[in-house]
Amino acid sequence: MNTNKNIKTLIVKKPLQLDCGKTINNYPIAYETYGTLNEKKDNAILVFHALTGDQFVTGKNPVTNKDGWWSYLVGPDKAINTNKYFVICSNVIGGCMGSYGPSHNDPNTQKVFGINFPVITINDMVNAQENLLDHFGIDKLFSVAGGSMGGMQVLQFVSNFPEKTKTAIPIACTSSHSAQNIALNELGRQAITADSNWKEGNYSSKDTSPNKGLAVARMAAHITYLSKKGLQEKFGRKLQEREDLKFSFDADFQIESYLRYQGSVFVDRFDANSYLYITRAMDYFDLARKFKGNLSEAFKKTKAKFFIISFTSDWLYPTQENKDIVIALNSIGADVGFVEIESDKGHDSFLLDVPDFLSAVKNFLEKSYLNS
Amino acid sequence: MNTNKNIKTLIVKKPLQLDCGKTINNYPIAYETYGTLNEKKDNAILVFHALTGDQFVTGKNPVTNKDGWWSYLVGPDKAINTNKYFVICSNVIGGCMGSYGPSHNDPNTQKVFGINFPVITINDMVNAQENLLDHFGIDKLFSVAGGSMGGMQVLQFVSNFPEKTKTAIPIACTSSHSAQNIALNELGRQAITADSNWKEGNYSSKDTSPNKGLAVARMAAHITYLSKKGLQEKFGRKLQEREDLKFSFDADFQIESYLRYQGSVFVDRFDANSYLYITRAMDYFDLARKFKGNLSEAFKKTKAKFFIISFTSDWLYPTQENKDIVIALNSIGADVGFVEIESDKGHDSFLLDVPDFLSAVKNFLEKSYLNS
Repeated sequence: MNTNKNIKTLIVKKPLQLDCGKTINNYPIAYETYGTLNEKKDNAILVFHALTGDQFVTGKNPVTNKDGWWSYLVGPDKAINTNKYFVICSNVIGGCMGSYGPSHNDPNTQKVFGINFPVITINDMVNAQENLLDHFGIDKLFSVAGGSMGGMQVLQFVSNFPEKTKTAIPIACTSSHSAQNIALNELGRQAITADSNWKEGNYSSKDTSPNKGLAVARMAAHITYLSKKGLQEKFGRKLQEREDLKFSFDADFQIESYLRYQGSVFVDRFDANSYLYITRAMDYFDLARKFKGNLSEAFKKTKAKFFIISFTSDWLYPTQENKDIVIALNSIGADVGFVEIESDKGHDSFLLDVPDFLSAVKNFLEKSYLNS
Repeated sequence: MNTNKNIKTLIVKKPLQLDCGKTINNYPIAYETYGTLNEKKDNAILVFHALTGDQFVTGKNPVTNKDGWWSYLVGPDKAINTNKYFVICSNVIGGCMGSYGPSHNDPNTQKVFGINFPVITINDMVNAQENLLDHFGIDKLFSVAGGSMGGMQVLQFVSNFPEKTKTAIPIACTSSHSAQNIALNELGRQAITADSNWKEGNYSSKDTSPNKGLAVARMAAHITYLSKKGLQEKFGRKLQEREDLKFSFDADFQIESYLRYQGSVFVDRFDANSYLYITRAMDYFDLARKFKGNLSEAFKKTKAKFFIISFTSDWLYPTQENKDIVIALNSIGADVGFVEIESDKGHDSFLLDVPDFLSAVKNFLEKSYLNS
């Protein structure tokens, strides 16, 4: 459980019935804000983070001392301009940056939850975060935005609270997790639970940590965030600080060394059980399910203006899955824009310096704000 | 070390200098044959297996009791017709079906090699297998064929022994392992070595086995053998023997259950250290390297007739990488045919019942045999 003094927390008193049937209350939501809420309270943007993100969107993350995960997009005079908009972001429930999750104590036993924490869904995450609007006295957000799992939360938020946002920007996401993506998440979970230090989720009480398994899970995921072409251009077959092959199992190639590094730094900032819970929530995501497979029905009650963005080299949430959302919105006459951005950077494009992407978001927001 | 009585073995006395600099001799090559070598000894086809294959190409594998890995393609009246051709296949060195590998004893210490076995290359594998030609008194093969790592061996064989085959069929392969594929192999190796039962490769002497890590490696690889579309069509979001989600970490989805099964059956038939060695050999494969990046030079001395085959949905060894070989061959006026087969079955297409593929191989061989 993260108790860093830089983490702001809202304790939500209102009970929340989860999709699994259990109810939680008096639970913490850890959040951060950027910019200033104006008097009319109509300039707020709720940002949702992806699988391993957190509430520290931009600037220096005070816990990790690294840049916030959306520093290219969010900040003063950036696409999501914090001189103009009030940005709120919270850690999802199930996470490990202060919001209620498996590393917290179970109030019934006073022991760490571990895998006794209830299995949560994207719907549960969004319902928990909606409490932030009451907290700030915001009736209607100017926008909701997020990429990957953040985009799924955007879709779920608009569906659950159709009147509570003027615009919505789901990026590089899907309305229904594919078999391949379930498989990749299951691979990560298997890597974690295969680690003998996982100890059925009770590692914190045994003073161990399944770091090796979590690092393997991260390496697997990291490969999927990049494109084949991007990897080839960046790494190819370049050797790591050596003139020739070493005929050993050391990291001969730069790509090996890079992957090992990605795995090793990840375990310092992320909790293995949270990885299990959040990937599970992604796999359970199928927005049309409640509407008997008709995705349009999920959006029927909203007047929000949508802007959907995909990337050419994203094979995890490819353009077609983003287009399916566009089609569902168009079929009910919703206000929807769509752009596929050319990029070799794969799924990670939404986190990186991709100028066409950054300007697309900037212009959509500015135009929408002028007209609001 | 596999000592099954159904394994035929040739002990190679001739010393082989490996790429790493070490020399091996008196080492076993485990092989199997199908069909009959004719009097002119001009009807032999040397088949090379892929990462986890072995010498048991078709019929019942006497060790695993499963069908041979190329049963769709090889057999009486099949594309590689064993009523007509004499098919030879051997386990690669580094493997675990009888050929010299890390589960064998080190003659110097009389202890199991483990990771003291020399790191081998595709070149080493092919040079070892060439000894089978002498063993059978074959001057020139009618063909060499293989998919994936088997295809890499085909390319290496023709390059090393340009006069020793009339035709060559590299399938779903590459002349140079890509950064993404190195990354995926490294992921598998990390999964194995993360298992506390791996014990720095000495698991057999400690009476343990890194089964969990090896299963994770297999799951990762298995996802890459299938296409996104194929997975979606076969599994989608279908649930496993349940009416609804269970809100747990059990295998709710059929794809999860399928992956776990693939992992669990694999560990019964494959050795973890062999997995390390063979993936390393694949990563080291870069046929043009010796020729300063000019792939054409690798094939300059051969008159063999090539037939190169790729599959539309293979994202591991995509059509473009196969085409690069075609281009290199064309640029020196080699006799080369190429076909991209339409299939949703991903990289695994070369192992499966894909009629267009099977008939393409059949017709190429029949036509070439008539003209030879």
